[in-house]
Amino acid sequence: MKRKLFTLLIILLTVFRSAFAQPAQIQRINPTNWWVGMKNPAVQLLVYGPNAGTLAYTINYPGVKLVKAHTVENPNYVFLDLTVSPTAKPGTINIVGKRGSQTLTQPFSLRARETGRKGGGVTAADFIYLAIPDRFTNGDESNDKFSDMADPNADRSNPFYRHGGDLAGAARRINYLKDLGVTAIWFTPVLENNQPLTNEGGSMRSAYHGYGFTDHYAIDRRIGRNEGYLAFIKAAHAAGLKVVQDAVYNHVGINHWFIKDMPSKDWVHQWPTYTNTSYKQQPITDPHASESDRKVTVDGWFVPFLPDLNQSNPYVANFLIQHAIWTVENFGIDAWRVDTYLYNDMPFMNRCNQALMDQYPKILIFGESSVSNVVDQSYYVRNKIDFPFKSNQPGGLDFVVYNAITNNALKQKNSDAFPLYETLAQDAVYVDPTKLVTFLDNHDLDRYFSVIGEDFNKYKIGLTWLLTTRGIPSMYYGTEILMKNFKDPSDAEVRRDFPGGFPGDKENKFEAAGRNDRENEAFLFVRRLATYRRDNPVMHTGKLMQFLPQEGTYVYFRYDTNKTVMIATNTGDKEISLDTVRFAERMKGFTSAKNIMTDATMSDLKLIKLPAKTALVLELQK
Amino acid sequence: MKRKLFTLLIILLTVFRSAFAQPAQIQRINPTNWWVGMKNPAVQLLVYGPNAGTLAYTINYPGVKLVKAHTVENPNYVFLDLTVSPTAKPGTINIVGKRGSQTLTQPFSLRARETGRKGGGVTAADFIYLAIPDRFTNGDESNDKFSDMADPNADRSNPFYRHGGDLAGAARRINYLKDLGVTAIWFTPVLENNQPLTNEGGSMRSAYHGYGFTDHYAIDRRIGRNEGYLAFIKAAHAAGLKVVQDAVYNHVGINHWFIKDMPSKDWVHQWPTYTNTSYKQQPITDPHASESDRKVTVDGWFVPFLPDLNQSNPYVANFLIQHAIWTVENFGIDAWRVDTYLYNDMPFMNRCNQALMDQYPKILIFGESSVSNVVDQSYYVRNKIDFPFKSNQPGGLDFVVYNAITNNALKQKNSDAFPLYETLAQDAVYVDPTKLVTFLDNHDLDRYFSVIGEDFNKYKIGLTWLLTTRGIPSMYYGTEILMKNFKDPSDAEVRRDFPGGFPGDKENKFEAAGRNDRENEAFLFVRRLATYRRDNPVMHTGKLMQFLPQEGTYVYFRYDTNKTVMIATNTGDKEISLDTVRFAERMKGFTSAKNIMTDATMSDLKLIKLPAKTALVLELQK
Repeated sequence: MKRKLFTLLIILLTVFRSAFAQPAQIQRINPTNWWVGMKNPAVQLLVYGPNAGTLAYTINYPGVKLVKAHTVENPNYVFLDLTVSPTAKPGTINIVGKRGSQTLTQPFSLRARETGRKGGGVTAADFIYLAIPDRFTNGDESNDKFSDMADPNADRSNPFYRHGGDLAGAARRINYLKDLGVTAIWFTPVLENNQPLTNEGGSMRSAYHGYGFTDHYAIDRRIGRNEGYLAFIKAAHAAGLKVVQDAVYNHVGINHWFIKDMPSKDWVHQWPTYTNTSYKQQPITDPHASESDRKVTVDGWFVPFLPDLNQSNPYVANFLIQHAIWTVENFGIDAWRVDTYLYNDMPFMNRCNQALMDQYPKILIFGESSVSNVVDQSYYVRNKIDFPFKSNQPGGLDFVVYNAITNNALKQKNSDAFPLYETLAQDAVYVDPTKLVTFLDNHDLDRYFSVIGEDFNKYKIGLTWLLTTRGIPSMYYGTEILMKNFKDPSDAEVRRDFPGGFPGDKENKFEAAGRNDRENEAFLFVRRLATYRRDNPVMHTGKLMQFLPQEGTYVYFRYDTNKTVMIATNTGDKEISLDTVRFAERMKGFTSAKNIMTDATMSDLKLIKLPAKTALVLELQK
Repeated sequence: MKRKLFTLLIILLTVFRSAFAQPAQIQRINPTNWWVGMKNPAVQLLVYGPNAGTLAYTINYPGVKLVKAHTVENPNYVFLDLTVSPTAKPGTINIVGKRGSQTLTQPFSLRARETGRKGGGVTAADFIYLAIPDRFTNGDESNDKFSDMADPNADRSNPFYRHGGDLAGAARRINYLKDLGVTAIWFTPVLENNQPLTNEGGSMRSAYHGYGFTDHYAIDRRIGRNEGYLAFIKAAHAAGLKVVQDAVYNHVGINHWFIKDMPSKDWVHQWPTYTNTSYKQQPITDPHASESDRKVTVDGWFVPFLPDLNQSNPYVANFLIQHAIWTVENFGIDAWRVDTYLYNDMPFMNRCNQALMDQYPKILIFGESSVSNVVDQSYYVRNKIDFPFKSNQPGGLDFVVYNAITNNALKQKNSDAFPLYETLAQDAVYVDPTKLVTFLDNHDLDRYFSVIGEDFNKYKIGLTWLLTTRGIPSMYYGTEILMKNFKDPSDAEVRRDFPGGFPGDKENKFEAAGRNDRENEAFLFVRRLATYRRDNPVMHTGKLMQFLPQEGTYVYFRYDTNKTVMIATNTGDKEISLDTVRFAERMKGFTSAKNIMTDATMSDLKLIKLPAKTALVLELQK
């Protein structure tokens, strides 16, 4: 009896609440538009506004069908499942919501797909340049700060504040990048990060890096809005530069509009008390792991101000997947870098990757899984290990090669290439290691030049390895002009402004005249190597053959039916006279070589002089 | 015309040689006998003697058929393919060889299979003790040296000479080992090593370790001959101890009789000039490796006095495979340790393993592949990686866990269990990691107690990990009495005599009275742990669950439906009060625990006191 009374009470309360509720409004629909002719005819619209979930929805548009409306805990949300027939015509769909006497009509644009380039992919033919828009070049001083935003400041004298860099500025550097031999640009995220600058226990928490989204469908005003991004990409494509978008699925900024008024409690991972991720990879792949350790790694929050999205909530999953497709379609993105890949829900990641690849078969997806060994690294990409979970991710950032080249090889006093050799020797675990994106540092790491003790010879060796071995090389902005610094005391130290990118800069290192001799030598070194790489298919699709490092020397070859390129490095402190008889498998028939850095011809290949701490790149000739 | 004349000449010479050849002799047949009722009816007899290859052979024995006789380059060899029908009766086969007027008859014994234990296998229920017979106990002073052998010396004052230990001595230690909790004994090889003691460029090269076979069918006289080995194994089995044989396929001693008069040039790997293996694992598994590097690793010789057998020669392969089966069948071996596994020809190894496993399904084969990472380690055992070559080896020595526990964890000043945790977390690459044989050192490595700086607390922690985590633990002789030393200046330093094993020894550490207090504490520590392990199936077949190491503590569980054992170690220098809420998955429902080292009861499991540098093994109770 008691239970019956209780049920009745609930029903009465529900009727009461519904009848006396405030009139409904629709403030947002995400995605903000869709297209006719997408591979997947289904799209789920998130409709948001006060009591938007209390309306009954109808759509009357030829070829578009409202299959189902899903309500959730929060009455301010409804999720509308639509199917869009291939025969539907572009136009404006009226989404009509009714409750009692109230009728709301919200227009939703169904567009024709533009014919331009989308999801073109990056490959081993590319050389990616990573930049933080806020720290690269300021092209529009009028958008440096907005008083109505959570962080209204811009101040270049403070490393934690916004510095005013933007897409308009980056657009001015397209020719600089082209000239350097770069073929693709990857910005840290450009989406709105309307997050406050906070001081958490002495640590400044800023959002200029872009990893705390507050609106998925708006490029940050300070970076250039959607229009600025579109314009940048158009210009980049016109110049032959590809664009990589930095995607974040694991978390959003705590100021995200849907976090402030969540669709349901399970929209994010909830914990009895705040629980940070352990940042430890092992519980995911360890067959002996506890469920609790696994949960802390994956569902623990990255930091307190970045709520951890629950991707096993189907609405969250659909939201993120559609946003990915919308972004590639809307802006014409070529490749998709995924932040904190390993902290995501893996079945969700596979679904999301598959949706992108179904629509854009050539797109390259490469996630950031900061791991310490190739077994764990392979788990997150297409691999040859029979793990209980099989990833479909084609690419991935190669943290193991990064560690091998920097911390294990060149950072050491007596540098030896063995760690790099040994890492590549484990490539059998990957379906396609040539799709891994290699790097020497990034915005979260000590800068390469500092790690190797500002040793200019080591600098050249590491860059030679990066630009000539297997994989898709990427380089962090400023490496070409010897920018340096360690993360400590803050990440900001490794995210300094590119000199010459900002009004009033006394030096302009975008131009030869603004660089000192060593910086120019570095720039020209990168340019020469990158240009050679860009112009020679053997460096993209040629096979790799590496020989056992011996006495400080490391020799490998890139080769195909047309060309053979020999890369020989000596990390030691003594000149080596390299006897090449050991490399006959690849050198047989070749009688001379062109040093691709100097264009000098080497007419005897039997003994090759390798001065202390040098890298040689030789195109072999018959 | 010239060619025809030449051909005629060759024919004449052949007739001449045959007619005037010395009478043939048969000096050896290997295997030295065979059995009726083996799974594989085929056996290939190597028949050796002056001109033994010039005879025409026949066999007239019911159920035994001579299928084919193969001659090779060297006329002193013939290989006879026999099939033995299951219905053949045991007895003596007469092998008859004829040439012209000469008829040779050589008896060959076809035995009935004995019913005793053979190929019984070792499993995770076992604890293996590794000893060098020459250095363990001398039970028969009459066999210490033989003036007719290549090395006629025995001198305990010289670390490179033979010391006189033997199987008769080891047999005296069976009770000692049983008492210690050991369940299986593994000797370094016992086969004849009739090799000289040489001085190569200042390095003494001795053969007391046993890895240079000179006759596959004879146990070294100085160790106890075939009779002594049979007697030892009978006694060991009677006492419940298993026996592991140390097999070597990759090479033999340069004094091996078949090396002094090789069947064919390709019996061993030939090189234009002497070529040593690089001792590098990478060229085998590296998809980018050169064929030349691969060949040096695999076909290069281990050292100049150990010729590298060519296992792609089918007669070599048959010889080795049949010797393995003969050995298990003849002596009743339980498990098969394979020396220098990675340097063998892998297709041969699979054939050989399969032949052993077909005959003895329970046998454990575990090879020595001294590698530095789990990808390479998995290559040589049954694994879950889609390598171009798939190994069928069930077990393997776990060099990665060895390195993790010793060099990466306990050797470090600030010891942390993370390297061990991280290694086990990669177990997903193995089909069955519980079949890997774990160890803390061996005869080729610095002794464990020295590696960890003779820190008795660390000693206990490492042994606790060894004896409670997954795998089949093995221990090098003397670890239980704190034997120490580093390899340098010679391996002999880590192969010292067990005190008390030799006539005239002033100390006898086989007995409590001969050990000092700390040695007794060590001995009792090992015994207690090993005995608990032996007597509790949860330690054999129970699952492993490990938790992320935190603040110097590392906690894991072995559990099955009957028991749950918690292992908690603190490698740090401060006492830790371990909050167990994090381990609820495994501790739920348990209210107290028995410390299995002290039998003390712990009545509150919420906070567990872990003093600095300690290991606790707790059997949880409801």
